[in-house]
Amino acid sequence: MTEVVITGIGQTEVGEHWGISLRDLALDAIQGALKDAGGLKPQALFVGNMLAPNLSNQAHLGALIADYAGLTGIEAVTVEAAGASGGAALRQGYLAIASGMVDVALVVGVEKFTDKIGSEVEEALSTTSDSDFEAVQGMTAAAQAALLMMRYMHENNVPANGFANFALTAHANGVANKNAMFRKAIKSETYTKAEMVSDPLNIFDMAPNADGAAAFVLTRRNLLPLNWQNQLVKIAGSAASSDTLALHDRKDLLYFDTAQISAGKAMKQAGVVLDQINFFEYHDAFSIYAALSLEAVGFAIKGRGWKLAEDGGISIKGKIPCATMGGMKARGFPGGASGAYQAVEAVIQLRGQAEANQIPNAKVGLIQSLGGPASTAVSHILQRLD
Amino acid sequence: MTEVVITGIGQTEVGEHWGISLRDLALDAIQGALKDAGGLKPQALFVGNMLAPNLSNQAHLGALIADYAGLTGIEAVTVEAAGASGGAALRQGYLAIASGMVDVALVVGVEKFTDKIGSEVEEALSTTSDSDFEAVQGMTAAAQAALLMMRYMHENNVPANGFANFALTAHANGVANKNAMFRKAIKSETYTKAEMVSDPLNIFDMAPNADGAAAFVLTRRNLLPLNWQNQLVKIAGSAASSDTLALHDRKDLLYFDTAQISAGKAMKQAGVVLDQINFFEYHDAFSIYAALSLEAVGFAIKGRGWKLAEDGGISIKGKIPCATMGGMKARGFPGGASGAYQAVEAVIQLRGQAEANQIPNAKVGLIQSLGGPASTAVSHILQRLD
Repeated sequence: MTEVVITGIGQTEVGEHWGISLRDLALDAIQGALKDAGGLKPQALFVGNMLAPNLSNQAHLGALIADYAGLTGIEAVTVEAAGASGGAALRQGYLAIASGMVDVALVVGVEKFTDKIGSEVEEALSTTSDSDFEAVQGMTAAAQAALLMMRYMHENNVPANGFANFALTAHANGVANKNAMFRKAIKSETYTKAEMVSDPLNIFDMAPNADGAAAFVLTRRNLLPLNWQNQLVKIAGSAASSDTLALHDRKDLLYFDTAQISAGKAMKQAGVVLDQINFFEYHDAFSIYAALSLEAVGFAIKGRGWKLAEDGGISIKGKIPCATMGGMKARGFPGGASGAYQAVEAVIQLRGQAEANQIPNAKVGLIQSLGGPASTAVSHILQRLD
Repeated sequence: MTEVVITGIGQTEVGEHWGISLRDLALDAIQGALKDAGGLKPQALFVGNMLAPNLSNQAHLGALIADYAGLTGIEAVTVEAAGASGGAALRQGYLAIASGMVDVALVVGVEKFTDKIGSEVEEALSTTSDSDFEAVQGMTAAAQAALLMMRYMHENNVPANGFANFALTAHANGVANKNAMFRKAIKSETYTKAEMVSDPLNIFDMAPNADGAAAFVLTRRNLLPLNWQNQLVKIAGSAASSDTLALHDRKDLLYFDTAQISAGKAMKQAGVVLDQINFFEYHDAFSIYAALSLEAVGFAIKGRGWKLAEDGGISIKGKIPCATMGGMKARGFPGGASGAYQAVEAVIQLRGQAEANQIPNAKVGLIQSLGGPASTAVSHILQRLD
């Protein structure tokens, strides 16, 4: 059986990098990953990106970044699935390595929001929703998430501050992550008094758009020398699923089918059950997404994802630690790079290098990258090889 | 050895489809491909598209089109490599099937230019070139091609009408293709008197931007029933390569490295040599691209690609038939769908269904999809299975 492994990782600090271009962000992460991969030479580059054609007037990132990283000549392509672009790029890299047609693949997720101003960013983000049926009505991602959150709170009798712990946990975990955008813990009152964005969704229920890039190197284990130095992490399961972009076509607004399907497939492939998963990097672009993801994957029953969080179940010492390096809320949301950050952070956990944020004896992690309200979900099971 | 085969094809007419949306174009091609594939159920969708986020305000095409085609739930992703997006989507579909992780994949290339007006289209197209170093200077794809053509004509003493036969051949072949945008043969004088776009490149040296979609179904041969009805076409070779976006970084302006590298790798994998290739679907977005592609692949020596065309070598009865269904010049250039059209047209040739345009006993075809001036090249060898 082919074992696809991650052999090198790199990431930039997430934040508003006004002075650093998209290609420089990508280069920084790639150089880190190649250095960490100990001299492996990539034959293919998979770029996860969501909005560069709109935000930076730059498409064709595959060839551009390959050349800029000194890898001119290699196969290179951009993979896009809205907010799940990073996870989708990992998936394509995984398939390429698993096929045997590519021996060493480089995956980079990169997003650069600060090339444009706020209203232009909103307009660009709206291209990831259904242009003809939702965006054209003025629907934004935050408004859409607020509708889901309102309905969820109504159906499940969630109190006003019921979602607070998603933000509190993320911010607590972000403190010790030197690449996080926000490294400050917040108190319950901070959440309660936070400015409303779209009732009932407040500023702490959504992750901040940010610039960043994360990269990693994939290969097959049998291609590595026996004395390979880095702790190896295996991609034990990989799957993706799609759903409607627009919410009006969903059978159940409050169930993320794709999160369930893709996580279930990835777990089945990996041969692991929920109890064996030591941490879950969910897609907390909105706290309601986090709650629905916990439920879809099966860590909480339907309608009780928020309660798992409220009871401390998602903290580093909880039943299922989530957003262990700050998640999208505190590490920041670098769009199509987010899924790549999840992979890099999971490798850090599985190598035992997460320091203050380390999950003791972490052996198996689930990472899940969403596009829109789980219109796309890409799930991977990463596993430490001993 | 895994044999990846194309089992079903579909395409829309190429043209200015003012009344048909991007998703409807994709649906039309997909329905054709699924019908032709005799009931195979795709598990994954790979969408090749270049400009929808800019031209149709619509990203996240994977999930959108999967749902619209009644395939809600399957894995779906967009693959982008500028004009090579269609070829790149084929490549990702091929890798997925070859990996054994996906059994049946659907690939659709789709582009919709007529959602925006001319100047907006130019602006969108410029995102595929180097935004910071070329587009920002006002460089367009046509101007860039004109520079290449001027230099090529100077270095190789090409007469004023030396490129005419690229357009004449394409238009001659487009006549009998009911999906072609232009189905009218042109005369040598038409080319000679044509309006100049960017000296020395005239209106017949460039392919028309157009709307269209083409789709096909991939699977592994051993998954098909023994009594499978359709003539099978195997993907015998698949490879891609990248180069600089901006021309100023090239060692040799007039050599398409990526076209050489990717074609060479694909031929090596397929175990075929040039003489065994019965036709070549090149990327004739500009006639100079066609000339340089013929040279890079090896059908002509450097500086003599134009002469091969002038001598009739690229016609249906020539040494190496090119643009056999009209190519981008006459079939039309539906951006990121172009590579998918090449695949569909090659299958038609290899099945022996090309009617008036049939290459006698066509057994092996090379298709090559370029992004920018061969900043990306994706090459595939398609082979008839007897």
